[in-house]
Amino acid sequence: MALTIPSSTKRVHLAKRPKDFIDGQTFALETIPLRTPGPGEVVVRVDYVALDAAMRGWIRDMRSYVPPVKIGETMRAYALGTVLTDAKTVKKGDRVIGMFGWAEFVTVGESSLRKITPPPYTDALDFLNLLGLTGLTAYFGLLRVGNIKPGETLVVSGAAGATGSTVCQFGKLLGAKVIGIAGAADKCKWLVDDLGIDKAYNYKDKGWKDAFKKEVRTLDVFFDNVGGDTLDFFLTRLNQNARVVLCGAISGYNSQSFSGLRNYMALITQRAKIEGFLTMDYADQYSEAEAAIARWIREGKLKRKFHIETGLAECPQHLALLFQGGNTGKLVVRISQEQARL
Amino acid sequence: MALTIPSSTKRVHLAKRPKDFIDGQTFALETIPLRTPGPGEVVVRVDYVALDAAMRGWIRDMRSYVPPVKIGETMRAYALGTVLTDAKTVKKGDRVIGMFGWAEFVTVGESSLRKITPPPYTDALDFLNLLGLTGLTAYFGLLRVGNIKPGETLVVSGAAGATGSTVCQFGKLLGAKVIGIAGAADKCKWLVDDLGIDKAYNYKDKGWKDAFKKEVRTLDVFFDNVGGDTLDFFLTRLNQNARVVLCGAISGYNSQSFSGLRNYMALITQRAKIEGFLTMDYADQYSEAEAAIARWIREGKLKRKFHIETGLAECPQHLALLFQGGNTGKLVVRISQEQARL
Repeated sequence: MALTIPSSTKRVHLAKRPKDFIDGQTFALETIPLRTPGPGEVVVRVDYVALDAAMRGWIRDMRSYVPPVKIGETMRAYALGTVLTDAKTVKKGDRVIGMFGWAEFVTVGESSLRKITPPPYTDALDFLNLLGLTGLTAYFGLLRVGNIKPGETLVVSGAAGATGSTVCQFGKLLGAKVIGIAGAADKCKWLVDDLGIDKAYNYKDKGWKDAFKKEVRTLDVFFDNVGGDTLDFFLTRLNQNARVVLCGAISGYNSQSFSGLRNYMALITQRAKIEGFLTMDYADQYSEAEAAIARWIREGKLKRKFHIETGLAECPQHLALLFQGGNTGKLVVRISQEQARL
Repeated sequence: MALTIPSSTKRVHLAKRPKDFIDGQTFALETIPLRTPGPGEVVVRVDYVALDAAMRGWIRDMRSYVPPVKIGETMRAYALGTVLTDAKTVKKGDRVIGMFGWAEFVTVGESSLRKITPPPYTDALDFLNLLGLTGLTAYFGLLRVGNIKPGETLVVSGAAGATGSTVCQFGKLLGAKVIGIAGAADKCKWLVDDLGIDKAYNYKDKGWKDAFKKEVRTLDVFFDNVGGDTLDFFLTRLNQNARVVLCGAISGYNSQSFSGLRNYMALITQRAKIEGFLTMDYADQYSEAEAAIARWIREGKLKRKFHIETGLAECPQHLALLFQGGNTGKLVVRISQEQARL
C-alpha cells in the first residue's frame, strides 16, 4: 500500500447556510493545496467519515455547544484515517481517529489525534461507532441521564439508527423492557429479531400510537433521538418519575418551524423531567464507559450494523439520508480510493 | 360567638366540565341537608377557602395526580374552618385546615383535619399560604427541584401570585439574583419596592423580551407558574445546566389548544432540564420546611399579601381572577357570615 503524500486535496466546504433542508447549494467541492506539516504536525489520509444528525446543528448559525462551521470552512466530521508522515507520537501507517472533516487529506497537529489499535474482536470502524462517540452517547444518556433500572420500560425513538440501536441493546443488557420506534417494517424486524428488543413500532403505520397505548401503555425512560410529534405523544405516556433523555431531534434539525410540544403539563402530574445532555461533559468517565462497552463486545453481546456509502463529493446527499430515515445502523462514507484495512 | 349547628348548608358543585374557560354553566349553587356527624366525625364551619390555579386541573377529566372532581360533587378546595362539635382530637371552637371545598358547612372525619394554633407572629390565614401548601410548594420547588445556589440568577413567572411572590422572597433569602415576571406595572413595583427583588418585567410591555435579553441575558433557574409562550422564550435564555421548575402553567390551564414549546432543543446544547413536581411527594420533609418558613416569618423576613374576596356563590368568578391576572398575593374567599377570628 503506497502512502504517497499529495500536494493538493479535495474537500467539501460549507457554501451557504440552509434555511430548512440541506440542498445542492449548501456545500461545495473544491481542490486546495495541502499544507506542508510543520513541527508537531502530520498529514492524514481520510479513510472513512462518520455522518451524524448533530452535523445539521453544526451548520446552523446559533448559540450552541460548539461554534458553527463558518462559510468557506471544511465541513466538520469525525473520521478514521491513516497517518502518512512520521511525528513523535504517531508513525506512518498508524490508524487514527480525529475531527478531520470532509476532505481526502488533512494536515493536523498530532496532539489532536487518537491512535487506535483495534483488538481482534473489533474492527477499526467500531471506533467511529460503539467505541466512539455513538457508544459513549448511548452509555451516558441511558445510564447517567436516564438512570435506567432493571424491570423498567425503556422506549427509544430513532431506534434503528446508530445511537438508537446501541441504546436498545444497552437497555436489554441492563434488564429493561425495550420498545423501539422506527420508520420501516424491515427496521422493526431487525430490532426485534436480531437485536432482541421486546417490541418495535413503525411510526409510519396508522394506528401505532393506539397500539402502543393498548400494548405497552406507559414508560419509565424515553430516549429521544427524534423530537417533535413523537416526543409530544410520549409525554402523555409517562409513568411517575419518568425521565425523558433528549439526545437529538432529527425531526427538528432540518426545520425552523416544526410543531411544538403541547403535552408538557404531564411533567407536573407525573413528577417527570426532560433533560438534555452532551457526551463531552462526561469526558472524565470515558475510559470507564469504553471498558464496559469493549467488554460487552468481547463477550459477543453487542451487534452493530454499518451503512457504508462512498465518495467525498456525495457526502451532502449521504448526510440527507439521516433525515429521510434512509439508514439502518451507523452511517459512514468511505473517502479514500485506496483499500482501507478494517 | 354562637356556634350553632345548622341542618342544611349551601354548597357549590361542579355542574359541567368547561372546554376552555370556566363560565356560568361550570358550577351551580344549591342547598343540601347537612349530614349529622357519626362516630369520629365533626361539623366544621368553613371560614375561608383558598383559590389556586391547580383547581382548573382538578375539574379536567384526564389522568392526573388526583381523581378529577365528579359532576355533582362539591368543588374541591383547601379551607380554613372552625370546629362546631366535639370529638376526640378536636373541640368546639378549634381552628382547622382541611379540604372542605366550596361549602358553608361540612361534616368530615376528624382524622382529615389539621388543627392549627397560630403563633403570635402569624395569623390563621398564613396556614392557607406561607405555612400551607403555597409555602411548601415554593420551598420544595426552589430548593429541591431548582436546587438554587447563592449567586445564581432566578427568574420567576407569575411572580406576583401567591407561589411566585413566595419563591421570589425565598430566592433573595438564599442569595440568588431574582427577576420577576408579572402582568401589571403595580405588581412589578410591589415586587421590586416591597419584596426587594432585583428586577421585574411586565410581560404586557412590548419589548420586555428584548429588555430581558439585554439587561439580564441568561438564567440558572426558571421557576415557572405560567407556561406557554413565556416558558418557550426562557428556553432560549438558559445557562449551562439550567433547571426549569414546572410548577404550573396558568396560560394553559384554561385552554386545550395553547401553542407548544418550540425551543426545547436548547435543553441539549445547554445540558438543561425541565422538571415537574408535586408538593405532596415531599410529605416526609414538611416539618423541616415549615420550621424554616416559620423561622423566616418570625424574623420578619417574609412579606405576604392577601387578596380577599367574599361570598360562596361568587367563588367561580373569584377563581377566574387567577387566570386573568386579577390578584396580587394569595387569593382567598371569606365564606362564613360570622366574623372569623384571624
